[in-house]
Amino acid sequence: MSKAIEVPEAVRWHDDAVRIIDQTLLPGEYREIDLTEVDALVEAIQALRVRGAPAIGIAAAMGLVASLKPHISLSDKDLRERIDDHARRIREARPTAVNLAWAVDRLLAVAHGMGTASNQEVWERLRAEATAILEEDRAMCRKIGENGVELLGDGATVLTHCNAGALATGGMGTALAPVYVAAERGLGVSVLADETRPLLQGSRLTAWELDRAGIEVTILTDNMAPFAMKEGRVDIVIVGADRIAANGDVANKIGTYGLAIAAQHHGIPFYVAAPSSTFDFDLATGDEIPIERRGAEEVRSGFGKQTAPDDVDAYSPAFDVTPADLITGIITEVGIFAPDDLSLLREAKARR
Amino acid sequence: MSKAIEVPEAVRWHDDAVRIIDQTLLPGEYREIDLTEVDALVEAIQALRVRGAPAIGIAAAMGLVASLKPHISLSDKDLRERIDDHARRIREARPTAVNLAWAVDRLLAVAHGMGTASNQEVWERLRAEATAILEEDRAMCRKIGENGVELLGDGATVLTHCNAGALATGGMGTALAPVYVAAERGLGVSVLADETRPLLQGSRLTAWELDRAGIEVTILTDNMAPFAMKEGRVDIVIVGADRIAANGDVANKIGTYGLAIAAQHHGIPFYVAAPSSTFDFDLATGDEIPIERRGAEEVRSGFGKQTAPDDVDAYSPAFDVTPADLITGIITEVGIFAPDDLSLLREAKARR
Repeated sequence: MSKAIEVPEAVRWHDDAVRIIDQTLLPGEYREIDLTEVDALVEAIQALRVRGAPAIGIAAAMGLVASLKPHISLSDKDLRERIDDHARRIREARPTAVNLAWAVDRLLAVAHGMGTASNQEVWERLRAEATAILEEDRAMCRKIGENGVELLGDGATVLTHCNAGALATGGMGTALAPVYVAAERGLGVSVLADETRPLLQGSRLTAWELDRAGIEVTILTDNMAPFAMKEGRVDIVIVGADRIAANGDVANKIGTYGLAIAAQHHGIPFYVAAPSSTFDFDLATGDEIPIERRGAEEVRSGFGKQTAPDDVDAYSPAFDVTPADLITGIITEVGIFAPDDLSLLREAKARR
Repeated sequence: MSKAIEVPEAVRWHDDAVRIIDQTLLPGEYREIDLTEVDALVEAIQALRVRGAPAIGIAAAMGLVASLKPHISLSDKDLRERIDDHARRIREARPTAVNLAWAVDRLLAVAHGMGTASNQEVWERLRAEATAILEEDRAMCRKIGENGVELLGDGATVLTHCNAGALATGGMGTALAPVYVAAERGLGVSVLADETRPLLQGSRLTAWELDRAGIEVTILTDNMAPFAMKEGRVDIVIVGADRIAANGDVANKIGTYGLAIAAQHHGIPFYVAAPSSTFDFDLATGDEIPIERRGAEEVRSGFGKQTAPDDVDAYSPAFDVTPADLITGIITEVGIFAPDDLSLLREAKARR
């Protein structure tokens, strides 16, 4: 028995423009924006209209292609210069998002390898490569979903943090992919979504996309999660990841670490869902992952209303690091791995 | 070496009116309100203009007295009826706050015990009793502070949750009392204040009163506390309590339980500060403490701005229960007790 589940498409083609959902307006308003110029693309990435490392990479690649279309009639040399210029400007939009540089560089490598091809041929090849990045991400999400769904029993409740769903990727997300596949298969799964202060990606985005897909979702403030576990309301925790070190330590949205401690305290399995590209085997442990610190303003007045005195400072790391020993397993597109045994994954990556 | 520390007075006399700080306006605006009528007092309690169990009890007792002043010239019988009527209306303002009923009943017992005394005598005796409730609370806070300060080394950083400070009591608070006493003694203590979703008493109130007193305070979202512990930024956790069972289980603001788990994980001492009146020896364990559930609206749009879809439900317990085995000690006005050995405290209470 299988059921069609509709997930939002965070990034897609609309003719030769990049169509994104403006995520800054959710959940109050659903608005799509078509991007065709570099400046508008960079603004959309910087203002978090499109967010989530995979989705940013896809939007960057497709946006680069869209921005080149009006310039196909230039001379060969001028078009090549234009490609490099646009690529540089897009790559600098958010220097910390590793997928952004990776996607842009992948298109540049294609362009630089095409020798004497015509401008039209170059552009069409770039468009195909950008589409491939989107399709690969979509397939990767589904594989994570199919691998992860084996962990979910009928009627399971999944607790998640932040948004590692369709809105963050080209497909059905990472942490939410097992939930979507379970729903397709008619398993009665439901989700508890941490609101995820300070930027509320859980209540704004995760709740929105699950609710829209007809999946039962309940929000809670982050500090309520341990008591929900104590009350027996959580069967499994699944979160995304921003970077994973060679020893299995995971950097993810602030609050992940506390959830992992609480899950271990209650004997609840704690899983991380992420594509194999998230692993950084150059980093021995999570201690080497740099943690971005954000300004006090997001904590002092995160809701457009001041909620703390002006001159009071805030401690505000954007991410935290969860040590491998608190993680039950890591769900990837090539299988589920114990965090203390990533050797097979490492070899699989090395072979590519 | 001792230094005067100014703490806000949440409730005090202004002539024969009850002067409170309107806590719904903090930290944006400091406004005092003088209450002389029952309706205004009940509204102030229900709208959380005055909050914190001890402060509510004090405001109720003083407010009852203030509301009776215009009626001293009534007949003896009419004044007595008026006392009972006002007491009933005030006691019903917030039926869950145990201190409210306790304080009102204490005044009623005095009134009912005065036989043929003149109206003026009755009113003056009630005013003295209400003042005694305020003064006893103030002295109790200071004793908690003097007992708790022994736990703080020079330069210690205290993590706290919600507001168990001066704004919640008639004096210098419960959880914050050791911090104020430390500051008086010139110890360089600082405080990390959880913002405390959903109602943000930490960033709105705790940060405000500590900042005003010249004590270094830094706010953080609730989900950042475990990572702050991991980074070595927390020496001790001190929180308040709403009710404590005979076995040492503690009901307090939602989020306290997760903090206690994280503190244990990091080997950081976790203390509860509360007057002995908070202990309810009729309850064998915390499982018997009823947990108030709040509406979804506070989570979905707690700041006047909608942050989750309309039709998404929220899990929103107002309190959680922290089991005794996660608690290092309970700081009271009569000493610090291990949660698994409350027998001396129980005997002390029984003797009164």
